[in-house]
Amino acid sequence: MRVLSLFIAASLDGYIAKPDDDLSFLKLVEKEGEDYGYAAFTSTIDTIILGRRTYDWVLEKIGASYYDNGERNVYVITGTERPDVGKTKFYTGDLTELVRQLKTESGKNIYCDGGAEIINELLKNDLIDEFVISVIPVLVGNGTRLFKDNRPEQQLELVNTKTFDTGLTQLHYKRKR
Amino acid sequence: MRVLSLFIAASLDGYIAKPDDDLSFLKLVEKEGEDYGYAAFTSTIDTIILGRRTYDWVLEKIGASYYDNGERNVYVITGTERPDVGKTKFYTGDLTELVRQLKTESGKNIYCDGGAEIINELLKNDLIDEFVISVIPVLVGNGTRLFKDNRPEQQLELVNTKTFDTGLTQLHYKRKR
Repeated sequence: MRVLSLFIAASLDGYIAKPDDDLSFLKLVEKEGEDYGYAAFTSTIDTIILGRRTYDWVLEKIGASYYDNGERNVYVITGTERPDVGKTKFYTGDLTELVRQLKTESGKNIYCDGGAEIINELLKNDLIDEFVISVIPVLVGNGTRLFKDNRPEQQLELVNTKTFDTGLTQLHYKRKR
Repeated sequence: MRVLSLFIAASLDGYIAKPDDDLSFLKLVEKEGEDYGYAAFTSTIDTIILGRRTYDWVLEKIGASYYDNGERNVYVITGTERPDVGKTKFYTGDLTELVRQLKTESGKNIYCDGGAEIINELLKNDLIDEFVISVIPVLVGNGTRLFKDNRPEQQLELVNTKTFDTGLTQLHYKRKR
């Protein structure tokens, strides 16, 4: 069955953004030629799920091709219908149903790129199979937490850890079944 | 100058206890003969600072000698005066002043064993020099967070990481100066 993975960076104190969607702390680990395994990871997936706010943020800051390279299916979870753009669909239905359906289909793996609301909704329904969390060596002190309160307990299995000379530590877990 | 260190276990989602001070998830990584470096760490310290609730919890569940082995100075931070017990003092003054004073004195290093209120008060005043965080391979979903909101930003330097076959990953950072 297809695996649904997170691949995300967080500060040691557990934030994926500072207030006002400020991601400037990621610059602490920017290094020419070092993508922390992102290209290798995305070569294993053909489907991306993300929230509408994250999508619009990336659309403005980076451009739509960051997600939709013409080959992947992109599902933007939203309450408001929008017409498809290329292979990007705006999905207004039930997130859990979408993921359960996608997992039964054949294909490469599925990547959830956030935001926190989507991730926590998936966690509440035990739908995330693998976690690749890049821990940035900083306490940002405030912002958007990767893990919100009030989720069910879930045991994990450590797959591996990788340490980089920038101080980034990548923790890779899979869900225990 | 003496270093003030945290040496603490947290779930991957950043909790040091489940609701009602439930630490049962630590059992997931219990292994005969494996102390995850605790004895080596405590051999470098001669002073312990901790909160009154944490102290009373340990007093009831484990016994006072867990902290006070007759050689260390133990400071229990509390709002209510109590007479000294052996080398354990109940400190009702200002936590920041105590730590600044202890750091100027000669001696081995200082260990803060929690709870979360004490840790976050120290973080707000930039008084923690080293962090050894043992990440337990579980999402507990709810409870007492190691890092509370509304702290200042603080850059860290990765010292090292250690991985254990129980799936525990130990992350060691020091404060950037």
